[in-house]
Amino acid sequence: MTYCIGISLDDGLVLTSDSRTNAGIDHVSTYSKMHRCVTTPDRCLVIMSAGNLATTQGVIQQIRRDVLEGLPRNINTLSYLADVAEYLGDVLVNRIRKHTEQTGFVPDATLILGGQIQGRNPNIYMIYPQGNYITSSADTPYLQIGESKYGKPVLDRFITRDASLEDAAICSLISMDSTMKSNASVGPPIEVMIYPRDQFNAPKHYKFEAEDPYLLEIRHEWANQLNRAFRSMPRLEVHAKPNSTLHTF
Amino acid sequence: MTYCIGISLDDGLVLTSDSRTNAGIDHVSTYSKMHRCVTTPDRCLVIMSAGNLATTQGVIQQIRRDVLEGLPRNINTLSYLADVAEYLGDVLVNRIRKHTEQTGFVPDATLILGGQIQGRNPNIYMIYPQGNYITSSADTPYLQIGESKYGKPVLDRFITRDASLEDAAICSLISMDSTMKSNASVGPPIEVMIYPRDQFNAPKHYKFEAEDPYLLEIRHEWANQLNRAFRSMPRLEVHAKPNSTLHTF
Repeated sequence: MTYCIGISLDDGLVLTSDSRTNAGIDHVSTYSKMHRCVTTPDRCLVIMSAGNLATTQGVIQQIRRDVLEGLPRNINTLSYLADVAEYLGDVLVNRIRKHTEQTGFVPDATLILGGQIQGRNPNIYMIYPQGNYITSSADTPYLQIGESKYGKPVLDRFITRDASLEDAAICSLISMDSTMKSNASVGPPIEVMIYPRDQFNAPKHYKFEAEDPYLLEIRHEWANQLNRAFRSMPRLEVHAKPNSTLHTF
Repeated sequence: MTYCIGISLDDGLVLTSDSRTNAGIDHVSTYSKMHRCVTTPDRCLVIMSAGNLATTQGVIQQIRRDVLEGLPRNINTLSYLADVAEYLGDVLVNRIRKHTEQTGFVPDATLILGGQIQGRNPNIYMIYPQGNYITSSADTPYLQIGESKYGKPVLDRFITRDASLEDAAICSLISMDSTMKSNASVGPPIEVMIYPRDQFNAPKHYKFEAEDPYLLEIRHEWANQLNRAFRSMPRLEVHAKPNSTLHTF
């Protein structure tokens, strides 16, 4: 499986992805799911992918080819990030449709696009296998693809539009850690990209292997702190009264 | 939807359930999902249910009727908790099959059975719509039905076989709170039953309405403590170094 998070903040973007792929439980590999497009200097575009690996690799290839062959519609010619999302949706649908028509098998994939085009705001988009897409909002500043549920509560608690890029990155690592604990098909290396608004050429990229000291530190410290928090919860038997309304039959 | 947790500890059992049901997003009701069977004094049996409400009500009715009509195989005549789980599975499958054969619609439901029969250990069972069932183990002392993912990480952190009944109850309330935050179809009242081993007639039952002071206290205190924990995490920019291995294409 896969777990990727895109976060859109006032200060810029934070993108986080795991690197485990599997085709059946006995065919596990490591592939980066975070891809930065080589673009003209007026833009920074990063794509994360979940789903069928052949489909996402095919999409990446097609995007590159459209640039190299100078097609009028490619990632460098579009003026809005939403147009890039629309274009990615079309490439994705074509890729999926080809194999569906040939074999009946639907090699679904979902993408997150994060980036900025000069003169506009940075933003994130989630592109569905059907080719349509959604973006974030002030109330929901993050988007997830893949195994999203285990790691969602911690994002809901700490991610607001005015969070710092560093806080959002730390939060996404905690979210990733909770997910890896609960789903063995999500795994390291964990990649984090921090994109400060208007810094087209200066996104910072971190790659954390399983035994990375910082990742371990975050994991241990979070576990310790949660343990302390749990031990300090108000006691049930002191503060609540049992009643006799249990339904019996 | 639904969220129920059954926890089996050295000291006894803790069962926790929400009370929201919905048939479509515009048909939301409140039903208890925790049912204590009226039994002979040598046993305590509690059933929690997730899934189709007609099916679970039908199962409960059938169980009661089998006792009233004195059928040789009923919840009072069986000697092992596993036999009760097997019996519940049969009742459940019959109930589902009837409607499937009549209409093609499969009104699935899943049950958790918790309890004890004198002379044996207390235990929990999860009964699938197919009628088969699993129990807990030393490594996995809890079972969940319904919307299980959001609330799983906190259970994984704190629930071990030797946890106290009260700690397990508090942990299940935190797990329930995280789930309610993320899934609007899980909602109060929240019921918690604490069953101390060998106390057949003395399970303690708590029912927390949405504005229950203790439930609010747990929620606020947990949020505060998590906030404090998050603020104390080791900083990324101090402890980790960016690299330049981001995949570009």
